Amino acid sequence: MGMTLVEKILADHSGRREVRAGDIVSARVDMILANDVTAPLSIREFRKMGATRVFDPEAIAMVPSHFAPSPSIQAAAQIQAMREFSREQGLPYFFEIGRMGIEHVLLPEEGLVVPGDVVIGADSHTCTNGALGAFATGMGSTDIAAAMALGETWLRVPETLRIVYYGAMKPWVTPKDLILYTIGKIGVAGALYQALEYTGETVRSISMEGRFTMANMAIEAGAKTGIFEADEVTLAWEEGRARRPPRVYRGDPDATYAGTVEIDVRQVQPQVAFPHLPEKTRPVSEAASMDLRIDQAFIGSCTNGRLEDLRLAARVLRGRKVHPDVRLIVIPASQRVYRQALAEGLLDVFVEAGGAVSTPTCGPCLGAHMGVLARGERAISSSNRNFRGRMGHRESEVYLASPAVVAASAVLGRIASPEELGLDETAFFETVGVRAS
Amino acid sequence: MGMTLVEKILADHSGRREVRAGDIVSARVDMILANDVTAPLSIREFRKMGATRVFDPEAIAMVPSHFAPSPSIQAAAQIQAMREFSREQGLPYFFEIGRMGIEHVLLPEEGLVVPGDVVIGADSHTCTNGALGAFATGMGSTDIAAAMALGETWLRVPETLRIVYYGAMKPWVTPKDLILYTIGKIGVAGALYQALEYTGETVRSISMEGRFTMANMAIEAGAKTGIFEADEVTLAWEEGRARRPPRVYRGDPDATYAGTVEIDVRQVQPQVAFPHLPEKTRPVSEAASMDLRIDQAFIGSCTNGRLEDLRLAARVLRGRKVHPDVRLIVIPASQRVYRQALAEGLLDVFVEAGGAVSTPTCGPCLGAHMGVLARGERAISSSNRNFRGRMGHRESEVYLASPAVVAASAVLGRIASPEELGLDETAFFETVGVRAS
Repeated sequence: MGMTLVEKILADHSGRREVRAGDIVSARVDMILANDVTAPLSIREFRKMGATRVFDPEAIAMVPSHFAPSPSIQAAAQIQAMREFSREQGLPYFFEIGRMGIEHVLLPEEGLVVPGDVVIGADSHTCTNGALGAFATGMGSTDIAAAMALGETWLRVPETLRIVYYGAMKPWVTPKDLILYTIGKIGVAGALYQALEYTGETVRSISMEGRFTMANMAIEAGAKTGIFEADEVTLAWEEGRARRPPRVYRGDPDATYAGTVEIDVRQVQPQVAFPHLPEKTRPVSEAASMDLRIDQAFIGSCTNGRLEDLRLAARVLRGRKVHPDVRLIVIPASQRVYRQALAEGLLDVFVEAGGAVSTPTCGPCLGAHMGVLARGERAISSSNRNFRGRMGHRESEVYLASPAVVAASAVLGRIASPEELGLDETAFFETVGVRAS
Repeated sequence: MGMTLVEKILADHSGRREVRAGDIVSARVDMILANDVTAPLSIREFRKMGATRVFDPEAIAMVPSHFAPSPSIQAAAQIQAMREFSREQGLPYFFEIGRMGIEHVLLPEEGLVVPGDVVIGADSHTCTNGALGAFATGMGSTDIAAAMALGETWLRVPETLRIVYYGAMKPWVTPKDLILYTIGKIGVAGALYQALEYTGETVRSISMEGRFTMANMAIEAGAKTGIFEADEVTLAWEEGRARRPPRVYRGDPDATYAGTVEIDVRQVQPQVAFPHLPEKTRPVSEAASMDLRIDQAFIGSCTNGRLEDLRLAARVLRGRKVHPDVRLIVIPASQRVYRQALAEGLLDVFVEAGGAVSTPTCGPCLGAHMGVLARGERAISSSNRNFRGRMGHRESEVYLASPAVVAASAVLGRIASPEELGLDETAFFETVGVRAS
């Protein structure tokens, strides 16, 4: 009996010829990451364990991306602890403010995660890295501390839930809409402890950036990870980037799956997830009919703060103005994305429209800084979570959507589709054209 | 007996032919401003007084620039209160995030303060507007509330301390260095309750931007205001900008002054103010010899976040990298400055060097957000105050300097002069050339 993609990766990393869903294995880890919220806890646990040296300085990344640049003395102290530990241990991958990005965007971008890796991080959206055909999952700070010392971690091998996408996406439908639609269909506990494997003819045509978006939100369906099989798109993306040789794993045809969900992509409209769960999705046409006035529009995060996302948002915003009652906050997800967006004139578009552009940070996504919501405020956001109080006051509301829908909503002052701005499919495919290049 | 410039403005605004230092007058105000820290207090007091309508919606500016975009729910609520009051009262000059700037940069830029005005603001750096030949001073929130209702305020007419600058500035000496040198000479209580009037042959050659820097720091010598006589530089700057007709006042030759301080500008070196007072100035050559390692370098604020400042900093940073142990934070002081800096390629220089560029905000200047200091950290900053704990932890240190010195220090990782980078006077005058254009 064959193995799934995830089983194959975990077998190889635990020195076994075969593993099965449900097995407990001790797996070698290729990359460990922690951020400014979690690293100080991991460092404290690391010391408590009596550990003195990390197993491999090159296998640990420390990224101050949540409360950075620091909005408080406490936040500054958290980053200081990471910085000092990184110096002490000689970690080459501590990323300083001004040279950093959101961890889940930065690591792949820097070639620090490659296909076939096992990646663990003290952050729930570590699953983003699964887009590369790696097994990537979030863990608690104590598990991370142990792995920093030992270079391995224990795992229960997850079952795999296959999502099969077929058919072509309609204009203004993006990978964000596919994953929102998927979560709407299976629910926020639809893949509890499982691996979500994104397959089917449609995914082959999805860019790496779109795959990161989809893998990123696997955790919002309860999954332990989200994963794509590495293909020519993946390997092309890794060229000149991967710092270690990629290893491409493929699931066996006769592997056992927990289940298979088929999605006819042609039926999918742009989606909006309503408060207070990512599964509360509705087609944008329905949301738009409800006259939902917004106070804030956020484009950024580890979900949708990449170059393609900014290109799409800029296409919608070009030559338009943000509605006077709305504040638009745009945050490129890494310094590299920032620089590329600058070079392509996208930042111009955002500021000309009356948007605020920040240095890379998670910022408002988790109500950390750079646009925390007040009581009664409503935001539309390109991020991944809309739990109660996620972006600020408990009595604020967050609606999740693609960068295109967020941008259109910023202009109209209410949740809206780009098509309401008279943007036809030509405008969309122009951007997609750029995206494919 | 003649009147000083300040006496003339206050006489006209209180409907009297003549006023004298020490007189208590009730003066008509042309512009009232409040920010997100102070406006909510003023609004509360305004309501407590039983007031229902502001005396003139066009004479009130509300600028959320301190804790904005909001780094906390509390900060979001403060801005929300300003926004709601502005809507209720129909204030045209509430500046939303994405369309705003630091109040003292934004108001002149938008032509909302003109020569001859009386301007009061619930912020101590309101004196910045004195650069235009206006009488501008900071007040408590209750006084601002009363003025919002009545359109006038009571004032004790201040004595004037004249600072006479003569001679030409040496390379790398900027208006920031002149004002730091002046405060070093007269002390932080050197002009207590007085008006500082900046005069002498040198000031005629100082651009409006440099004058704003100098007027801004009058309060750091204890002055009630800092003021320049409006001249052709002022009037040229106001062209296409002033929303009301400028009125140029001049002091009489036989006016009475509290004193006169003469400064031979040729003797002034670039200055660095040491912790924890702006008066603790030393020449940069002396500071540079002390090997003062820095953790953070900040270019921005109502003192030095204007276009000339960014041009100068970019000239120093172009083709160089920020020291690995340093985080450089650059914050254009307004959306307009941001856009111009973008268009001129200055933001490119900052991010290529490894700096973080934020949307306009006061941010780290007052330890609000965007780079709060941890315990034991040392920063060099282009801002105006280095009081203990100003930018974060009580056990952090702030050194004040010009954008050129801050930029050079960011590259070298310690407090340093641009000349240590091999930048000669040609490089400086190139920038000055751009500045003069």
